[in-house]
Amino acid sequence: MSSAPDGMAAQILAGDRRALARAITLIESTRADHRREAEALLEAVLPRTGRSLRIGISGPPGVGKSTFIEAFGRHAISAGKRLAVLAVDPTSRLSGGSILGDKTRMEELSRMEEAFIRPSPAGLTLGGVARRTREALLLCEAAGFDLILVETVGVGQSETAVAEMVDLFLLLLLPGGGDDLQGIKRGIMELADIIVVNKADGDLAPAAERSAADVANALRLMQPLHKAWRPEVLRCSALKNIGIEAIWERTEAFAAALGGSGELPARRRIQAKSWLWHELSDNLLETLKSHPIVAERLIDLEAKVAAGKMAPATAARQVLAAFLGG
Amino acid sequence: MSSAPDGMAAQILAGDRRALARAITLIESTRADHRREAEALLEAVLPRTGRSLRIGISGPPGVGKSTFIEAFGRHAISAGKRLAVLAVDPTSRLSGGSILGDKTRMEELSRMEEAFIRPSPAGLTLGGVARRTREALLLCEAAGFDLILVETVGVGQSETAVAEMVDLFLLLLLPGGGDDLQGIKRGIMELADIIVVNKADGDLAPAAERSAADVANALRLMQPLHKAWRPEVLRCSALKNIGIEAIWERTEAFAAALGGSGELPARRRIQAKSWLWHELSDNLLETLKSHPIVAERLIDLEAKVAAGKMAPATAARQVLAAFLGG
Repeated sequence: MSSAPDGMAAQILAGDRRALARAITLIESTRADHRREAEALLEAVLPRTGRSLRIGISGPPGVGKSTFIEAFGRHAISAGKRLAVLAVDPTSRLSGGSILGDKTRMEELSRMEEAFIRPSPAGLTLGGVARRTREALLLCEAAGFDLILVETVGVGQSETAVAEMVDLFLLLLLPGGGDDLQGIKRGIMELADIIVVNKADGDLAPAAERSAADVANALRLMQPLHKAWRPEVLRCSALKNIGIEAIWERTEAFAAALGGSGELPARRRIQAKSWLWHELSDNLLETLKSHPIVAERLIDLEAKVAAGKMAPATAARQVLAAFLGG
Repeated sequence: MSSAPDGMAAQILAGDRRALARAITLIESTRADHRREAEALLEAVLPRTGRSLRIGISGPPGVGKSTFIEAFGRHAISAGKRLAVLAVDPTSRLSGGSILGDKTRMEELSRMEEAFIRPSPAGLTLGGVARRTREALLLCEAAGFDLILVETVGVGQSETAVAEMVDLFLLLLLPGGGDDLQGIKRGIMELADIIVVNKADGDLAPAAERSAADVANALRLMQPLHKAWRPEVLRCSALKNIGIEAIWERTEAFAAALGGSGELPARRRIQAKSWLWHELSDNLLETLKSHPIVAERLIDLEAKVAAGKMAPATAARQVLAAFLGG
């Protein structure tokens, strides 16, 4: 990491993809000197961020996320966009070890000059992975990418984490078989701005139509998230490139609607502040957990609390007294 | 507050309602000496807690929560239960100032010896109100109440807070008029174990039937929260006391199903641990916000972050350095 942040910042702002890749690797590092360089870099490029549409993409295993991203991405590029594809995968232990953002699954897209694909950062916690992805997102914007996709698997709270860093949340679904074991994970439907039933072709076309109708009915029962947008349900076949143009058109309509109503800037302000408080909370708890004396007491007290042998507020006060020196 | 905790603990365990009321007032106090007394009291009674079924109840304004709680509570009492009714209302600024838990709205129930009704504690934050309610819940169990209802209005995250302290979450709905402005608040349907469409009588009966069917269809799309229970949708008229027995029967079925599968004890262990971490996080952030030097920097940095002039992780690090003495 010998390039000075100023130099690296200039390269990124000039659209240098290799500098961008190095910068994202810098951001993923936990070394204190790297963190300082990374922060200086982010400060340097921050004024040139915010100019993309940020889309989160999730869906159950097997729904065809990679195929969809490739089809959708190619269409966006043909419409003049420069596209970055990032990923949040808290199960990723080694950089590049995640199945998300795997270029071999998006082969054509990965060869296009207008696309930049990056696997999920590794990280011990979802919070750590999410922070790195948010920072990578900002760097990609500074490098001139004006459409950012953030892909995630349905592990733990990763959808919520991604929803908190994007403008639009797109949920992919399989055509239902009437089997509610394939049900939508709780809490996810309510995050979605656009829901897409994929594989809506051939034998599955009727099932896809029914699923889309069912989901649309369910959405009608719920209060919309935004004043200027009601969630929509579409169908497509990503493999056969059917229905992709309509989805692209609706994402543009979403951006226009929320941009026009001022809801998008407002949403981003809330997201930025929320990120600040997440960072404060996460870091304080991490400091607590790595404090030599406190950590041991914490394990003991947590066990007592779980067993119903100590009231949580009592345990919390004891931990904090030890930590803050009371 | 002159009674020693030992004395007060003994009185509560003996079922003395006035001691219970005094103890809950003690818990609501922010004075440091009162907190210590309250903690000692909780430790003394803790072994005798956990023996109730805890039910959260929410729904939009005008749905008839008080009427429902009265009808449901009277039925539970006729089935041999002793019932406590608590409330989480973060808009409540003065103890007793909240509209929830207002005895005049549950007049018959409030006169019954087997029922104990307490308004929401006051508190500056939802976290503070939730903690006091959780502790009051434990005291009520120690006093021999074996059915605890926790009522809430749909303000902010209060449903989530209540869902985290109960076994069963019951959502009341109005018969829909086809107007999606009456839509279910986002994120609430996924919390519900039992959904009840109230006012399902007279002119509204057909609309109630349609709403119940719509909600049931929507729930079928989602993965259930529990292995041993699929969410159910019922109808009732609380005012006319129709359908209440069936609802009571289903809450008993829920308790039996989740008790039998071990999911209920597991859920409570998770809730207790989660409460501990909420307390730690909330208290650490409160300490941060009230630190004289840090608080001022925080306001300034938060504004910069919201305006996109500083990266949140950078701001967080600066705040923490000031706080932890770096």
